[in-house]
Amino acid sequence: MSLETHDQPIGAFDSGVGGLTVVQAMRELLPSEDILYLGDTARVPYGNKSPETIVRYSREIMTYLNKYKVKAVVVACNTASAHALSVLQKESNVPVIGVIAPGVEAARAATRNKRIGIIGTQGTIQSCAYQNLLQRLEPDISITAVAAPLLVSLVEEDWLSHPATQLILEEYLAPMKAAKVDTVVLACTHYPLLKPLAQRVLGPEVVLVDSAQNAAGALAGVLQNHGLNRAASSEAGRITICATDLPAQFSRLAERFLGQRIEAIRCVTVG
Amino acid sequence: MSLETHDQPIGAFDSGVGGLTVVQAMRELLPSEDILYLGDTARVPYGNKSPETIVRYSREIMTYLNKYKVKAVVVACNTASAHALSVLQKESNVPVIGVIAPGVEAARAATRNKRIGIIGTQGTIQSCAYQNLLQRLEPDISITAVAAPLLVSLVEEDWLSHPATQLILEEYLAPMKAAKVDTVVLACTHYPLLKPLAQRVLGPEVVLVDSAQNAAGALAGVLQNHGLNRAASSEAGRITICATDLPAQFSRLAERFLGQRIEAIRCVTVG
Repeated sequence: MSLETHDQPIGAFDSGVGGLTVVQAMRELLPSEDILYLGDTARVPYGNKSPETIVRYSREIMTYLNKYKVKAVVVACNTASAHALSVLQKESNVPVIGVIAPGVEAARAATRNKRIGIIGTQGTIQSCAYQNLLQRLEPDISITAVAAPLLVSLVEEDWLSHPATQLILEEYLAPMKAAKVDTVVLACTHYPLLKPLAQRVLGPEVVLVDSAQNAAGALAGVLQNHGLNRAASSEAGRITICATDLPAQFSRLAERFLGQRIEAIRCVTVG
Repeated sequence: MSLETHDQPIGAFDSGVGGLTVVQAMRELLPSEDILYLGDTARVPYGNKSPETIVRYSREIMTYLNKYKVKAVVVACNTASAHALSVLQKESNVPVIGVIAPGVEAARAATRNKRIGIIGTQGTIQSCAYQNLLQRLEPDISITAVAAPLLVSLVEEDWLSHPATQLILEEYLAPMKAAKVDTVVLACTHYPLLKPLAQRVLGPEVVLVDSAQNAAGALAGVLQNHGLNRAASSEAGRITICATDLPAQFSRLAERFLGQRIEAIRCVTVG
């Protein structure tokens, strides 16, 4: 492995800003790595689109990231991980990490009563990617899966503790409370911002598993295994944010998800 | 004008299913016309995207519709009408009708106290297309414009009378009630389905203007002026529905907007 490969950036993508919660977690865990993030804001959201379309979009984004010689790619989007991960892994020369397997592992580790809830977009829930993997690893587990298509818009609008958001969340989470789950997977990169409200609705004893931290952990493991880690340095790595569309409020929104100031966002074309 | 031109279809497009409310109104007013509808479901929604991206998408769709020799095009989408109509009209060989001018005319006709509310997507409201046209035609009018980004998702999820939808609508409409408007323009093709709830929130004395009927009326006028009407016939015209993505629930959703059974939906690629 040449020194150059160590220094290449890590690619990450999502339909929009949600994946920046994953970038934030990557940043905390792997501070010296350069990160190249692409948000497909011209075609956001992915959660209500067909598997075929999600595979096409994900392939186009991989082609874009590969032009910048990324050494690994994080699919920082649950819907794309559900529909496209295996295709991307098959076609890619560099490791590709999704958010689903890390989330499943974290949920297995967290549950005590073997009752797990999963909340995500229509696409993620209908794909059964979480349900199938959990069932395969823990055949005696009981799963309550709920599609929650309204939450992405509510998060993007910053209605994080609005009474309407609470009402909607109570409705989505009611089957999980009825099933007495002790662990809920927030299976969408937008949902970490709803964690405080979801915790209030579910009660303090329920463990909430979010994609961001677990995916960052999985990435760290893969870099280690492949000897791809960048040498520790006093200087922080560079974060480059690209988006396929830049609507008026985009930087403000992106900063909220990333949890830090963003100097510049590049508008790029993919596909 | 050859007979062939009369018999060519009318094109119509929207970001997704919303424009089918316009198609339904066109159907009622012009029953013998063939209609070719394109819903850009692979890139829906448009309301949160930049003007540049909306112009690009609209141009690509016009190229697609022109391949089928449409005799006129209805931009059955408020955001695309706001950002792209003048460009499309400049570049097109056939008449292009938007939804904004007809909505403005209907609002002018309806108001008695010259206080008008406009509710639409972020893109439509920020473009000021409604506000500027109204102000130019009626300089002494008072306008209350509200961006309501959550309503499209609520309509697509069929939460038309859910308590959360009522709560959200009450919040969006509060400035209009405070301004004592007597007329509200529903400036998004999704909103006709929220008419009953909006009427309940605003009270029975407020007139709700929707895009669908007024755009169909404007189209009828344009066809008349250009001598483009198809000869009346006992046989109803054909409605062809195309979409750029076909997610699982799409036909059911489309039928709800069109108000009738759809035999087949063609999945097509534009751009």
